[in-house]
Amino acid sequence: MSKGFLLVISGPSGSGKGTVCAELLKRHKDIVFSISATTRKPRPNEKHGVNYFFLTEEEFKKKIEENQFLEHALVHSNYYGTPRDFVLNEIEKGEIVLLEIDVQGALQVKKNYKNTVFIFLLPPTMDELKNRIIKRGTESEEDIERRFRNAFEELDFVGEYDYFVINDEVENAVRDIEHIIEAEKLRVKRHSDIKKKVMKKEER
Amino acid sequence: MSKGFLLVISGPSGSGKGTVCAELLKRHKDIVFSISATTRKPRPNEKHGVNYFFLTEEEFKKKIEENQFLEHALVHSNYYGTPRDFVLNEIEKGEIVLLEIDVQGALQVKKNYKNTVFIFLLPPTMDELKNRIIKRGTESEEDIERRFRNAFEELDFVGEYDYFVINDEVENAVRDIEHIIEAEKLRVKRHSDIKKKVMKKEER
Repeated sequence: MSKGFLLVISGPSGSGKGTVCAELLKRHKDIVFSISATTRKPRPNEKHGVNYFFLTEEEFKKKIEENQFLEHALVHSNYYGTPRDFVLNEIEKGEIVLLEIDVQGALQVKKNYKNTVFIFLLPPTMDELKNRIIKRGTESEEDIERRFRNAFEELDFVGEYDYFVINDEVENAVRDIEHIIEAEKLRVKRHSDIKKKVMKKEER
Repeated sequence: MSKGFLLVISGPSGSGKGTVCAELLKRHKDIVFSISATTRKPRPNEKHGVNYFFLTEEEFKKKIEENQFLEHALVHSNYYGTPRDFVLNEIEKGEIVLLEIDVQGALQVKKNYKNTVFIFLLPPTMDELKNRIIKRGTESEEDIERRFRNAFEELDFVGEYDYFVINDEVENAVRDIEHIIEAEKLRVKRHSDIKKKVMKKEER
């Protein structure tokens, strides 16, 4: 049987990773979305084990100590993390697990788990990146400038990734990622029994 | 600019690599077929530099000494080899160069050139492999048995390859290879200037 793998889709703010991942999950019902753990309070429509695993700060910190996260971060005094067990169980079943994450998080995952395919999503131009950051409309000019500078600097980390995808149109980016997924399924290293597979069919 | 790469499509007799490569080249006019050098005499319709590079035995042996082949072999007292210069020049131009070759040849290429994507083509079953070898109709029972045994043993080398593709139908095998090609074009390691690419567009 084929082993699954962790698919990390990452990139700076404005690369459009949220939109691309949503479209990918819509089209491929077999891809499992990696559910994060968090210490922030659930919103009214959110369910434990569906949107997030909601943990107390104490529970979260215990899991950090036990090395139970592939990555974690403290954002506006709330913890967020990717639970190792959830991801590894799904992969063990042969599933492809999708993790949408920022660049800092992806670099943490890279240190913690080898069986991962890393995709760096890029905006087509720096102008377009700025447009996308501005379009969110929720931030001050200062925040926009800070996000833009961060995004610019984060482009340097593309060398740490396996693949890059330029997100000029969601359609094109999703198609590129689909090629990568199909190719990665055919990797010899994910299959321990290729010869047996061909031989077994003969014995039917 | 993207660097090209060498695409090795290989597998035992009966895997159908000839048919698959012909179909791939028919559909993708941009893929460059790796032209072999040989010491055998040209047939009436064959042209130097198109079907083969026709060399004298002396010329061929000199090139072997100068390490000018990515692989070479002596078959029925004729030499055959893959000229390093031809392949490297095309790759330098950004082209994908396709080399269709047997398993022993692929293993030689692996030792001699790093920038290669290795695909192992498999028959769907051992029965089908035997059928395909028999269907050639040109060989004695003894030859068929020998080819079948060789093919069976060569399946063990799949672990040396990057990808495997099961050739149940040419259509499916070609589609799988197309996914691999598109994914490999998006490999970060083949692009030295991804950040620059995004920045340059801005300056237009």
